[in-house]
Amino acid sequence: MINPFFRNNGPFKISDILQLINLDDLNIDNDQEIIDIKDLFMSKKNEITFHSKKYKDIAKNTKASFCLTTEILKDELPKSCIPLIVENVLVSTSKVTSKFYPSSINDNFDYTARDITETKFKNQVQCGKNALIGDNVTIGSNCLIGHNTILEQNVSIGDNCSIGSNVIIRNTLINDNVTILDNSVIGKHGFGFFPNNKKNLRYPHIGIVIIGENSEIGCGCTIDRGSMSNTVIGKNTFLDNQIHIAHNVKIGENSIIAGQVGIAGSSILGNNVRIGGQAGISGHLTIGNNVEIAGGSGVIKDISDNSKVMGYPAKNIRDFLKDNK
Amino acid sequence: MINPFFRNNGPFKISDILQLINLDDLNIDNDQEIIDIKDLFMSKKNEITFHSKKYKDIAKNTKASFCLTTEILKDELPKSCIPLIVENVLVSTSKVTSKFYPSSINDNFDYTARDITETKFKNQVQCGKNALIGDNVTIGSNCLIGHNTILEQNVSIGDNCSIGSNVIIRNTLINDNVTILDNSVIGKHGFGFFPNNKKNLRYPHIGIVIIGENSEIGCGCTIDRGSMSNTVIGKNTFLDNQIHIAHNVKIGENSIIAGQVGIAGSSILGNNVRIGGQAGISGHLTIGNNVEIAGGSGVIKDISDNSKVMGYPAKNIRDFLKDNK
Amino acid sequence: MINPFFRNNGPFKISDILQLINLDDLNIDNDQEIIDIKDLFMSKKNEITFHSKKYKDIAKNTKASFCLTTEILKDELPKSCIPLIVENVLVSTSKVTSKFYPSSINDNFDYTARDITETKFKNQVQCGKNALIGDNVTIGSNCLIGHNTILEQNVSIGDNCSIGSNVIIRNTLINDNVTILDNSVIGKHGFGFFPNNKKNLRYPHIGIVIIGENSEIGCGCTIDRGSMSNTVIGKNTFLDNQIHIAHNVKIGENSIIAGQVGIAGSSILGNNVRIGGQAGISGHLTIGNNVEIAGGSGVIKDISDNSKVMGYPAKNIRDFLKDNK
Repeated sequence: MINPFFRNNGPFKISDILQLINLDDLNIDNDQEIIDIKDLFMSKKNEITFHSKKYKDIAKNTKASFCLTTEILKDELPKSCIPLIVENVLVSTSKVTSKFYPSSINDNFDYTARDITETKFKNQVQCGKNALIGDNVTIGSNCLIGHNTILEQNVSIGDNCSIGSNVIIRNTLINDNVTILDNSVIGKHGFGFFPNNKKNLRYPHIGIVIIGENSEIGCGCTIDRGSMSNTVIGKNTFLDNQIHIAHNVKIGENSIIAGQVGIAGSSILGNNVRIGGQAGISGHLTIGNNVEIAGGSGVIKDISDNSKVMGYPAKNIRDFLKDNK
Repeated sequence: MINPFFRNNGPFKISDILQLINLDDLNIDNDQEIIDIKDLFMSKKNEITFHSKKYKDIAKNTKASFCLTTEILKDELPKSCIPLIVENVLVSTSKVTSKFYPSSINDNFDYTARDITETKFKNQVQCGKNALIGDNVTIGSNCLIGHNTILEQNVSIGDNCSIGSNVIIRNTLINDNVTILDNSVIGKHGFGFFPNNKKNLRYPHIGIVIIGENSEIGCGCTIDRGSMSNTVIGKNTFLDNQIHIAHNVKIGENSIIAGQVGIAGSSILGNNVRIGGQAGISGHLTIGNNVEIAGGSGVIKDISDNSKVMGYPAKNIRDFLKDNK
Repeated sequence: MINPFFRNNGPFKISDILQLINLDDLNIDNDQEIIDIKDLFMSKKNEITFHSKKYKDIAKNTKASFCLTTEILKDELPKSCIPLIVENVLVSTSKVTSKFYPSSINDNFDYTARDITETKFKNQVQCGKNALIGDNVTIGSNCLIGHNTILEQNVSIGDNCSIGSNVIIRNTLINDNVTILDNSVIGKHGFGFFPNNKKNLRYPHIGIVIIGENSEIGCGCTIDRGSMSNTVIGKNTFLDNQIHIAHNVKIGENSIIAGQVGIAGSSILGNNVRIGGQAGISGHLTIGNNVEIAGGSGVIKDISDNSKVMGYPAKNIRDFLKDNK
């Protein structure tokens, strides 16, 4: 489910993978083939996974044949899964993922993109001037693609979608009746890398962006694709202009997000959430259903269902207004 | 004054309008023709208006022949104006406006835009590569239109204007000596719609954007057009980069607005206002003349003339600095 | 060093310069030629400089032949430097600079830009559709230039750089291994001008933007060039999406700046600085090495080395969290 788009360069022999992560002295059958890398829950036999945190229950049930992990965590794995003890699980996971999915690291412009009038979409889509289409793009019926817009590789668009001008989309699945306004960039890799004092090491982003039906994305927005999971905008959710949605963020249905809001990586928002202009949400948070976040707020901890918050750090809106009379 | 650009599809018989808003059982002369929909103040005989709030003095003097309103407010209207009692005045107003101005709802890309070198502007304007011009565009003398810039339908540009590259403008009136820098989007519909759990209902935006003479708009700005009134940037007002101006906002003259500021819908700012970077102003506020708003502030109530404010919520700058020593 | 790109229209006779700043009644040899205008430290014989503030030690050693200054400051200059007493040093400096560098005032689109396929870069660079190249551009080996991207006049790009699509760059020096993502605008003049109630007077920006090797600039960023000095992004510094860097800002090496951050004019940041999303930094500040600024913070005073700050105004992060429990 995670990577319908990125081409898997595998399988690779486990010996090749061990060499990549400096474990080539391990006593393992060199001929075994590894098909893919996935998370603990999704991985199966003949696949490799990774385990660096507290997912004890998931770890003990993984179907993976191998697991990148630490000395401390290795005992949580089932006997069917061979632990590969590495110094830094994230770095090793990144290296192995890069081997399977080399095109998921850099976001160089898509050299395969051709003018839409030279493609099969010429008569199927109402398109603007200079619209470009890369490889592996599908477009449903009754769609509009604006001027200078670029659908780079790995884009699937449903029916009745209206894409504006100067838009750039890649690695994205757009459902029916979606509107995307001018100058937005969707599906770029996230701001994720291993800092290094000489040259930061970018890690792969094999997730995609999924935009639910009836949603609208405003002008000048950026929605980054996920690293090991997807970035998701739920059904009938409307985003105003100049919003930034980082990698792995999941936004529920029927939500309304005003201009210049920013949501940091891996935060998960429920349904019917309303966020005022310029509010910011830190990474790795959970925001419940029916939450209202006032404009300009800075959310730095989880927010439970049906809450209304305001301020920085955001707290109950009544408390905030009372404290700031 | 409000809609010099949007084509009025009327007149319509009042019976057609009544049917649209589920009032077709009213006992009204079916042959009467309605020419337009306007606000209480602007509307005249044979036009329809709407009244949902507290504009008592304007309501009693309206010249409109019909008014969408509520049971409670209907008695404020003069005898010459027939009240049409509806459940939700805004929704009904939206439906009727959509009937008169269907092209004001969606902002699909302008399919009529042609390369400027194929138009009469070829020899009149100094233009970049791939510049596109839609229907109903006028350009004054001595103007520059940058590369990849799109002037969609309904744009009027004065003399001596410099428009950068990758700019998209529609439904906008630009006066003389205005500079608009790269990648800005001006004249898109505002972020206004009726939330609905299955599919939000966009309401029409028949207002335009008006930019006063000698003004400058920075890079990557978004200025949305108004819904039932206009969005206005006053004379000699300078906007820095990445600013978002929502629908119906009015900014006075000689104002200076720094980068990444956001102003929510329908707020009105006076002259000589100075706003620091990343400040935000909530919707429906009135900011006086000569006001200074410090960078990063969040303004959530009206600000009187000559005030200097700071903080979130913004308050007197001396108090803020004293409280935050 | 400051202006490798802007063409110097000089030399000019001192009499012409004196006339420009309304000092033509001064008793000075009319035939003396002035070669350039520079700051107190950089200027040499036969050049003009300016002195309006507290740079006493630099002023007494300037090599300039003339100096725009005030009655109060003029005695700080050496005898070799003739003081020119003016009402407003900045306005006069601006006028003289404009005379030497007229193209540094306005940022009209670059009319000289041609399709890259018509240039010498055709076979040297892997380029997208509609990429445009202006005069005085150099590009190193193994570079990518995306679709619709415009390298306007005065751009120098090193080796192994990846420039995305819809990017606009001018007056910028980019070192090796730099990535610039889609829709960014780099090298525009800063938001600097003399406010005037009839028509603001833009002052010249003869600085450039310098981006160090191995750096990355995200999507939709704006980085303005300097006025009398340069805007600098250090080596191996990564910027996320929708960031605004104002004129004359200097950012050190190995820094990480998250989405929607804004840094106002002339602030100087050290190395290894980390800034969370939506944080803002006021102008003319000094931020030390190894500083961490939490997301959403508003920094309004200098921050010393190794500090961690949060809040608005930003203070020690422990104090902030304790005060906001």
